[in-house]
Formats: sequence, structure tokens, C-alpha cells
Amino acid sequence: MGKRLLVVGGDAGGMSAAAQARRIEPDLEIVALERTRWTSYSACGIPYLAGGLLHRPDQLVARRPEEFRAARIDVRVEHEAVGLDIAARKAEVRSLAHGRSFTLGFDLLHLATGAVPSNAGLPGCDLPHVHAVQNLGDAVALLDFARRRRPSTAAVVGSGYVGLEMAEALRRRGLGVTVVESGPEVMGSLDPDVGARVSKAMRDLGIVVHTGVRAEEVTTGAVVTSAGEIPAELVVLGMGVRPDTALAVEAGARLGPTGGVATDRRQATSVEGVWAAGDCCESTHLVSGRPTYQPLGTVANKQGRVAGINIAGGYAAFAGVLGTAITRICDLEIGRTGLNRAEAEEAGFEAVDATVESTTAAGYLPEARPTALKMLAERGTGRILGVQSAGGPGSAKRVDVAAAAIAGGLSVEDLIGLDLGYAPPLSPLWDPLQLAARSLRGAV
Amino acid sequence: MGKRLLVVGGDAGGMSAAAQARRIEPDLEIVALERTRWTSYSACGIPYLAGGLLHRPDQLVARRPEEFRAARIDVRVEHEAVGLDIAARKAEVRSLAHGRSFTLGFDLLHLATGAVPSNAGLPGCDLPHVHAVQNLGDAVALLDFARRRRPSTAAVVGSGYVGLEMAEALRRRGLGVTVVESGPEVMGSLDPDVGARVSKAMRDLGIVVHTGVRAEEVTTGAVVTSAGEIPAELVVLGMGVRPDTALAVEAGARLGPTGGVATDRRQATSVEGVWAAGDCCESTHLVSGRPTYQPLGTVANKQGRVAGINIAGGYAAFAGVLGTAITRICDLEIGRTGLNRAEAEEAGFEAVDATVESTTAAGYLPEARPTALKMLAERGTGRILGVQSAGGPGSAKRVDVAAAAIAGGLSVEDLIGLDLGYAPPLSPLWDPLQLAARSLRGAV
Repeated sequence: MGKRLLVVGGDAGGMSAAAQARRIEPDLEIVALERTRWTSYSACGIPYLAGGLLHRPDQLVARRPEEFRAARIDVRVEHEAVGLDIAARKAEVRSLAHGRSFTLGFDLLHLATGAVPSNAGLPGCDLPHVHAVQNLGDAVALLDFARRRRPSTAAVVGSGYVGLEMAEALRRRGLGVTVVESGPEVMGSLDPDVGARVSKAMRDLGIVVHTGVRAEEVTTGAVVTSAGEIPAELVVLGMGVRPDTALAVEAGARLGPTGGVATDRRQATSVEGVWAAGDCCESTHLVSGRPTYQPLGTVANKQGRVAGINIAGGYAAFAGVLGTAITRICDLEIGRTGLNRAEAEEAGFEAVDATVESTTAAGYLPEARPTALKMLAERGTGRILGVQSAGGPGSAKRVDVAAAAIAGGLSVEDLIGLDLGYAPPLSPLWDPLQLAARSLRGAV
Repeated sequence: MGKRLLVVGGDAGGMSAAAQARRIEPDLEIVALERTRWTSYSACGIPYLAGGLLHRPDQLVARRPEEFRAARIDVRVEHEAVGLDIAARKAEVRSLAHGRSFTLGFDLLHLATGAVPSNAGLPGCDLPHVHAVQNLGDAVALLDFARRRRPSTAAVVGSGYVGLEMAEALRRRGLGVTVVESGPEVMGSLDPDVGARVSKAMRDLGIVVHTGVRAEEVTTGAVVTSAGEIPAELVVLGMGVRPDTALAVEAGARLGPTGGVATDRRQATSVEGVWAAGDCCESTHLVSGRPTYQPLGTVANKQGRVAGINIAGGYAAFAGVLGTAITRICDLEIGRTGLNRAEAEEAGFEAVDATVESTTAAGYLPEARPTALKMLAERGTGRILGVQSAGGPGSAKRVDVAAAAIAGGLSVEDLIGLDLGYAPPLSPLWDPLQLAARSLRGAV
């Protein structure tokens, strides 16, 4: 009663905690600090803003500061926590708009400081035509640059989900776009044989995709790579992100092996009264049982919700992650869940796999599109370890079925028998998941 | 070695058994009898043939008689088993093309006799403009009738999946179409509040939907109902089907409480050496634990596969069904799995439910379409009992995730924590399944 919760970070991991805590504990005073002008926005939506499907950054905002204030959550946008005295329960806060700093006391602290874009030490990254797409501020800066400078060429360095979505968005706006990826294929979270399908879809849209090529330096108008110079009046950083743990470290919270803040199942850090959620945290992978770093909105929202319930004195536990991720790139839907081959081997599984080519609808209907599905299972037990899917409509969300099956401990044999839905316009009679399970049956 | 398997019925439940048995046991002699001219066809595809998306009935054939013969399966089309002497292991077979009968001995018998359309004793059902859509022969007769008579009005009596798909197909061809359903809403396998969404979608396409109206008689040019006469130059029977168990009864096989052939998990009937699969059989419902009748291609294929493996001396078990079914009616995708409210109550569950309205994509994208999802869970345990879904793209197959979750024994709380995929064009951040689970959390 009368306690003050300080939330650092006004996006998913922070504000879902604040909202849950408010709902459960009306007497808690809640102050939330956010560096940008926006709260609870969909960073995943930035490529659609860049692509021109949306017209104003605030279309990506799920809940505005005024709405939180109406729920008695004192959100302070353009405010940054720049220091902590955890023993004294005090934070040093800077107002970015006014340049002033002040001290704010708290009883409970929730860290949702997010992530920072990785630039992997690439020289030239501070040039004005180099843009990250991590938050709405980045998006506004990129759009503003594009409007003023009208670049005709762009390079995306790295090939994570958002980077490739940006490549598509810029290509659809008419730019000449090149993707530079140092790994064997785009989207390193997929096995290379699945990633190759993504490369093909991008090339079909006229995007130049260089794999096995290292970006060495950004210069004005170009990216210098191990395979020569690529013209680029605009450069997008798509090399992923790393957890922003500066405040957590200052609070004395333990970091895990992935570099993210380590929490227990209730999202409590190793420091009494300090909680954390979202892209600054690591999670436990439910298949490998090991720590993993999954900076995704879905995870941040779930962890934030769990943290908020616990902060307010309730009980909730975050179950862990399966590494589920989906996207649509150039009309190819892509999904993955569980472990890919490299991850399965690293986790010590003897994995067998099968890839099936099927269709999104009964093959005899004109609307049927190709879809491919790769499944990994553990030899001996037949336990499903992971699924990767790429193809026409419905291919991405198909991995949700695998996610539920993995969470429920289903085997390949169980999946063959599972009562999945079929109708000619919506699925082949044997769902691709079951076709893959059938072709794995003899191997496990 | 040298044994003969007689398969009665050349569609899914029969031919998937024949194909599996052949694969495992090269020495088995396999004879299969099929009444129509076609084998292994997609009866579910008939509405798309009627709608003009397909042009020839054989486009629905997955595997032709010649292909089975090439695999040494002696398929005899236009042949019907009309009698059995189970003690002597002999069948009386009639050639429909030649009108001749002969006796065929066997060692093993597999019954996949399918189902017959229900006409619920409706007078006038034998008039030439009244058509069932149970097999390809029915489809050919209906198309032939439509070509010759060019009806401008049609009535569908009953409102099962295929009946409604036929109503849409005929409407899209320009006919004035009326659906007559005696129950409170169309699609009795859905709760009426979900069925009402289907009615609305049909009415939006210009189909007249009468619910709570009983068809009393078919006359030339009309259907006489409890609410007056409905003009109908073509009448489609959409009142569902009942298992065709005549031969099974003659073999002495036990029928279950649903009226279908009762088998064990290996698809063996109560008579030694006699197996059964598909629409002539009942199944066990995995949620209620009770016998249920689910005449669907998915179930028939799975049961046939299991029967074939066991007939050939292997081991396979049919897991049971969840009552999963999906379709697309007038651009509304519909899916259901598990128990609906009436089924849950009949099975003795104290069920709580929640319905959420969400979108198929992030709400800020222009392509987002409405989708609704109803979830039932058991009070006390939070066990998920059933899900019904209706809306835009992806709504139908979403029930597959619920099917996997139910099969894995997941609770509402587990579903909230489940790592499901999110990308703005493909899903809202919290999947509708999780939104429903969240709104049920307090009630279970």
C-alpha cells in the first residue's frame, strides 16, 4: 500500500507489466519511463510503415501515454533512467526534451530496457544514411531520411526477420535493394536448405541477395564487402540485436550465458524487488532446457504480463519459449518452432529430419500453392524437436500446431494420428505436418 | 502367404488400407470392390466441381484403378458386394456393368462400405430433381441434371458442411438458393451463436437461410416446409449421412451406440479376420471418451492406414478423434474441434466458455479481417474442451493448434504461455486462442 513501482521502458515488456500490476493492485503507485515519444508500439510493424502500407508512426501504437495515464500509470515519455542507486532505491532520470536530470525513488523496480541493434563493429555505422529499425524513433528517422534524400539504392546488412522485411518494403517502393549476409544462407534461425527458399523468393522480387559475403565497411553511397562494393544510398542494419543490460548490471542483477538478464520463472531478477521482462532478458528453451535469447514481441508481452502479476502480489510463471517465429517475405510465408538442426545437435539430440513438399489446398484446386515443411525428431523417442515451414498462405502459422504438439510432448506417431482439419480450399487431406511425420516414422 | 484380402469400398477407408497392406506384405493377394467407376476420390471436392472450379469428375481422383492395379491391387470398379457367407469366407459380388453375379472367396475381409445420405424419411426424395452429394456418381448425376435442365432455383435441405458448400457453389453459378434447416441455426456441429455467423455470411451472398423450419415434402419444383413452399427446381440433400453397415451386420460384426461399426484401436471388428474403416465405422472421442460418428475423409484415411498395417501383420493403433472439422463458406472460414457446448454438457463436463473478437492480422494493417473464436474449458481443471472459430484467412486451421493442445492435455493457463507465432500480416500479437484463454482464466 502506497508503494511505488518504477518501470523502465515503455514498450511491451514494461507496459504489459504496468497494466497487469495496475489491474491487480489499485494502491500501487506506478511510474513508467520511456526514452521515445511512444508507448506500447509494434516495432514488428516498422517494415509496413516503411513499405507505405501505413502512413503515420502512431498507427503502430497499441496504447498511448494518455490512455495509461487514464489508468493511473504515470508514463513519462522522452525520459531515460541514466543511473541507479539500488541500495537507496533511487534512480537518476533525465528528461530528454529538457535536458534536465532528477532523482526518483522507488520501492519496486521493473526493467524492460529492451535491446540495442548490433552493428558488429562495422566501420561507418555512424554515417547519417545508416539506419537501425529497432524502435519507432529509428523508423521516423529512416522515413525522414528517405523523404528528404530519395535514395534509389539500399543495402540491408544482415538478414534477420526485420532486415528482410525491410528489404522487401524498400524493393516494393522501387529501390534497388541488396542484402548482404555473411552466413551460408539468409535467416540464420532456419536451416540453410530452408533459408535458400527465402533467398529464392527475394531474388524473384528483384532483390539482390549475397550470402557468404561479409560487410567490411560502410562508406557514403556504398557498402564495402568481401565480394566488392555494393551501391547503397541507404543502409539498413539487420544484424539482430543484443540485450540492453546496462541498468540491470548497475542494479547488480545476474546476467545469463546469453548475455541477457537472468530471471526466475516469475521474472524476478537475482536482486530482491527487481524484476525484468522483454528483450533485455533471456528465457529458457523448452526443448533444449537451456537459456536462449529470443527478442520478440510475443515473448516480451508474456513476460511482462507475468512480471506484472507477480509484482502486484499475484502468482504467474513464464513457461519458457520454443523459439517460434514467423514472417512473410515476398509472398512466401515462413515459420519455425523448436530447434533447427544446428541447435538440436548443439543441445545433444540425435535428430532425424524429413522435408515434404505439399500444397496449401487440395492439389486439384486452382488456388493451391506450394508449401514445404521440414521436421526434426529425436531418434529413439520420436519426440518432435522442431519444424520449419515455407510456402503459400497458412504455411507460417502451421508451426503453431507444432508448437502445441511440442509443448504437449507429442511424438511423430502421435502427430500422424492427430485429428487435424481438412477442407479442399484450406488444406491437403493429410496436413503437411502429418506427411512429414509419416516420412519420419521409419527413421526415428 | 498366398492369403486373399477382400476390400469392400474403393475410397479412402478401403484403398488406404489396401495400399498399406500391399506395401508391407508383398505376398498378400488383394481384391478391392468399388460400386462406382472411381477409386480414392475426394468427395469433399464435389462442391468445387459443382461450382465450376473443376471441370471433370476425375480431377477429384487421387489414385486411379490402373495405378492400384500397377501396385498389384486388383480393383474392380462397378462391382458391389451384395452378400456374405462369413463362415465359408465367401462374398457374393455383382458386376453392375454386366448385371452378373459371382462368388469370391477371401481369407481376410476389410469393410469400407462408407455411408448413405440421410433423407430422414422426407417424402418426394426419389424425384429426379433431388440429389445427394455423397459420392462422385451423385456429383455426375447432379451436374448432368443441371446441364440438361438449367434450374434457376435450388433448395438445400439440411445444413451440414457439404450442403452449405453446395449452396454457395450453386449461388455463385447464379441460382436462387434457399437453405432449410430444422435446428436453431445452420451447422449443428457448432454452437448456435457461432452458426449464426455462418448464416450471416450466407445471407450476405444472397442465399436465403431458413432456420427452425422443417422440410415436409419435396414436390416437382418446390420444397414444402413448415413455413410455406420454397421454389426449387433442384433439391440437394444436406441432412448428413448414416453408416452403411449392411455387410458388417451380415458378417456378424457388432455395431456401436452411434450405429456405426464398432472396432478396436487396430480397426478390427468383433469378428475374427474382419476389419473396418471409414464412414461405416464409429470412433472414440478423445475428450468425452465416448463413441462418436465422424464420417470425414481425414478419419477414413487414418483408420484405413491403421487397418492396412494391422491386416498385413504390422502394428498400428487409431488414436481416436477430436471432432475436428473445417470449411470455408462464402469467404468465412469455419473450424471446430473438441466438444461444443451441448456435447460438453452431455458428456458431463461443467464447461465455461468465452468468445473473443479479434483480427486475422495486426489490426493496423489494411488486410486485417475480423475473426471470432469461442473456447470451452472445464471448470476446476482448466482443461481445454473445445474451440470453434469463424472469420477471415487462417481462422479455420487455427483449430489445429487447439487440437494439438487438447491432445497434449494443455490447460487454459498452458495455452496463455504457449509460444505461438506472430507477424503483423499473419496474426495479432496475442493469437485469438490466447486471447480466449486469457478471458477464460478467471472463470475456470
